[in-house]
Amino acid sequence: MTSASSRTLVRRLDRVRAIMRAAHLDGFIVTHLPNVRYLTGFAASAGLAVVSSDACTLAVDFRYATAARALLGAQEDTGITVEVTDKSPDESAVEILKRAHVRRIGIESSWMSVSRFNRLSAALADAGPALVSNEHPSPVLVPTERVVEQLRIVKDEEEIAILREAAARLSRIALQLTDIARPGRSEDQVAGEIDAAIRRAGFERPAFQTIVASGPNSALPHAHPGARILQDREAVVLDFGGVYSGYCVDLTRTVQLGAQPPELARLFDAVQEAHDAAIATVRPGLLPSEIDGAARAVLSRHGLAEAFGHGTGHGLGLEVHEEPRIGRRTGVHPETPIEAGMVFTIEPGAYVAGLGGVRIEDDVLVVAGGCEVLTSL
Amino acid sequence: MTSASSRTLVRRLDRVRAIMRAAHLDGFIVTHLPNVRYLTGFAASAGLAVVSSDACTLAVDFRYATAARALLGAQEDTGITVEVTDKSPDESAVEILKRAHVRRIGIESSWMSVSRFNRLSAALADAGPALVSNEHPSPVLVPTERVVEQLRIVKDEEEIAILREAAARLSRIALQLTDIARPGRSEDQVAGEIDAAIRRAGFERPAFQTIVASGPNSALPHAHPGARILQDREAVVLDFGGVYSGYCVDLTRTVQLGAQPPELARLFDAVQEAHDAAIATVRPGLLPSEIDGAARAVLSRHGLAEAFGHGTGHGLGLEVHEEPRIGRRTGVHPETPIEAGMVFTIEPGAYVAGLGGVRIEDDVLVVAGGCEVLTSL
Repeated sequence: MTSASSRTLVRRLDRVRAIMRAAHLDGFIVTHLPNVRYLTGFAASAGLAVVSSDACTLAVDFRYATAARALLGAQEDTGITVEVTDKSPDESAVEILKRAHVRRIGIESSWMSVSRFNRLSAALADAGPALVSNEHPSPVLVPTERVVEQLRIVKDEEEIAILREAAARLSRIALQLTDIARPGRSEDQVAGEIDAAIRRAGFERPAFQTIVASGPNSALPHAHPGARILQDREAVVLDFGGVYSGYCVDLTRTVQLGAQPPELARLFDAVQEAHDAAIATVRPGLLPSEIDGAARAVLSRHGLAEAFGHGTGHGLGLEVHEEPRIGRRTGVHPETPIEAGMVFTIEPGAYVAGLGGVRIEDDVLVVAGGCEVLTSL
Repeated sequence: MTSASSRTLVRRLDRVRAIMRAAHLDGFIVTHLPNVRYLTGFAASAGLAVVSSDACTLAVDFRYATAARALLGAQEDTGITVEVTDKSPDESAVEILKRAHVRRIGIESSWMSVSRFNRLSAALADAGPALVSNEHPSPVLVPTERVVEQLRIVKDEEEIAILREAAARLSRIALQLTDIARPGRSEDQVAGEIDAAIRRAGFERPAFQTIVASGPNSALPHAHPGARILQDREAVVLDFGGVYSGYCVDLTRTVQLGAQPPELARLFDAVQEAHDAAIATVRPGLLPSEIDGAARAVLSRHGLAEAFGHGTGHGLGLEVHEEPRIGRRTGVHPETPIEAGMVFTIEPGAYVAGLGGVRIEDDVLVVAGGCEVLTSL
C-alpha cells in the first residue's frame, strides 16, 4: 500500500488540530475510514483514530496488526501510534480518551450512527471518576461536520500526482473501448473485459461496479450489466473507474456502434457540447452550480432539460463520490466556491426512454484560471 | 433484477407492521438499503421506504424512475407505491410522513447518522401545523434497532432457493482453484481470473474484493492481492464471493502449492479439523458462541489459540456480513440462539507471522437437527 509521506501526514494532523482548537475540542474521534486513511496513511476496513492536542492513536484489531505496525514503523516521526486490540474500536476509543483526560470530544456526525453515538456517550459517562467532581466532569461528545472533508476537498501535491497518474492509466483504457464494446458481445462480457483492463492497468480494483448499458438500457443512468447482446446501430454507455494507491478516478464514454439513427446522434452531439461547455467554464472562484448551469444550459437549448436528471459531477479522491458536488443549487448547504487543487468529474448525460441515453465523463483538476483535463489521453 | 414475489413482500411488510404496533409506532423510515430491498424488492443505491399501518412508499430519485415503475408495475397487489422525486430522499420522507399524519416514527438507529437524525427531526418539527394544538403534536423520531434485521436473520423459502443456487455456483469455481492458482502467476492475475470466473458463473458481481494471499501474505487475514508471484511449496489463501439475485455467498480455500513444509501442513490440518468440528456442531438451539467455541477448542488443542484472531463466521443474505455473528460471547449484546433457516459462514483460520496462514470457509444452512453445507460440490 502506498501511503502519504510523514511530512504530509504531520501537516494534515496540524490542520485538524487547528480546527479542533477553534471549536474548543480537546479530542476528536475519526470514524469515517477514508478520513482515518487520510490522517494516518493506514487503509483498513475497520478501526478508528483518536486525535488529541499532542497525540494521534490508530486503533485497529488483530487482523491489521502486522500491516499497521509495518506502516507506522516507516513513519516514526509523525507522532502517530497504533493500538492493536481485541476489543471493539469503540471500546478502544473510550480507553484512549479516558487516558488522555479529554473533555470535549468531536465526533463525525455524518458518519456516526445514532446507535453508536448513544453507546459511546454511555460508555464515556461510565468512564468518569467514581466521585462527582467539577474538576473532572464527564466528557461530552460534540457533533461536528466536515472537519476532515474540508481539508480533503483540495488535494495536496502528493494526491495530485497520484490522481494524475491514475487518470492517465484510465484514459488508456478508454482508447481500447471501441475494441472491447463490439456488437455481438454481451454487456456482462464487456464489463468483464473492462474490469480485466482496469486490473492490468495497475489499479488495485475497480472503483465501483462497471456500468455497461446498451441500447434501451442506456436510458437507465445506473443500469447493471446483464446478458443483453450489443447491437449494431445503437449506443452503449460505459462508465468505469479504478482505485490507484487508494485514489479513485472515474470515466464514461458512450460508444456509438455503427451508424446511428439521427435522433441518437443528435443526443450524442448535445451531450458532447454540454460536456465541453462545462469543462470550458471550470475555474477557481466559480460556484459548483455555475459549472452545472453551463452543462444544463446547453441541454436545455436542445430541448433536453428534462432528460438530464442528475448532477454534472462529483469530487474524486479517497472516495469515488466526495466533495465538491457539482450540481444545482439546493439551498440546503451554502456552496463552497471552486478552488485550485480540487479534482472532480464533469459528466453530463441525457436519457430518453425508448431512444437511449448518452453520458460523457472526464476528470478535471482545477488550476489557476481554468482546469486540466486529467483523463485526456 | 430478480425480486421477491408479491406474496413474500406482503408477508414481510405485515411482520414489520406487527413490530411497529408492539412499539407503538405509526410510521417507520427504512433507510438501510438492504432493508429497503428486502421490504420492497427494489434495489437502488439511494432512496428509502416509509411504512405506515396501511401504506409503504418507496421514494427514489429520477435515476431509478423507469426501473422502479417497471418493478412495481409487476407487483400491484403489494400495496407498495413508488414516489419519484427530484428532492432528496429525506425531503420526500418528510412530505410522505406529513401527508400520513403519523406521530411516532421509528428510525433505524444503526443506519442513520447523527447528522441525518438531527436534520430530519428539524424538518418534521417545521412540518407541523401553523397553530400549536394538542390534537396534532409534532411527530417524533423514535430510535429502533434490528426491526428488519430480526426478520432477515431467518431466510424464507425464496431466499434459501437463491442462496442454495448461488452457493452451488460458487462451489463450482472452487473446483477450478488448483488450475487458477499456480506457481509463477501473480496474486493479481489469480484474483483477476477468479473474478472472471465469478462473472462467468452468472453472478452479478463479486461480493467483495477477492483475497489472494500467498506465502508470507497469507499470514495477513485481510491482505489485498498484489504483484507477488506464487511460489512452489507455499500456501495461498483464496477468499471470494459472489452476488446472485442480490444474495451474497462467500467461500475460502487455502491451496497448497506443491509439497508443504511440515509446519505449514500441520497448520492446514488443524484448521481443517476446526472447520469440520464447527460444522458438525451447528444445529438449532445452540448459541453462536458455542459454534465458535467448537472451532476455537480444536485450534487451542493444537496450540493455535492466539493464531485465530477473528470470529468463526457471519450471516449471509442481502449483505455479505449480516447477522448472526458466529464469534466469542462479547457481553455487549445478548446472543440470539441459532434457528433453522439461518445461513452463515464457517471460516476458522490460523495465521502465524513468518510461517503463513490458512483459512477454510464454507456456507451452511441451518436445518432441523443440523446443517446443510451449501458450498459442498
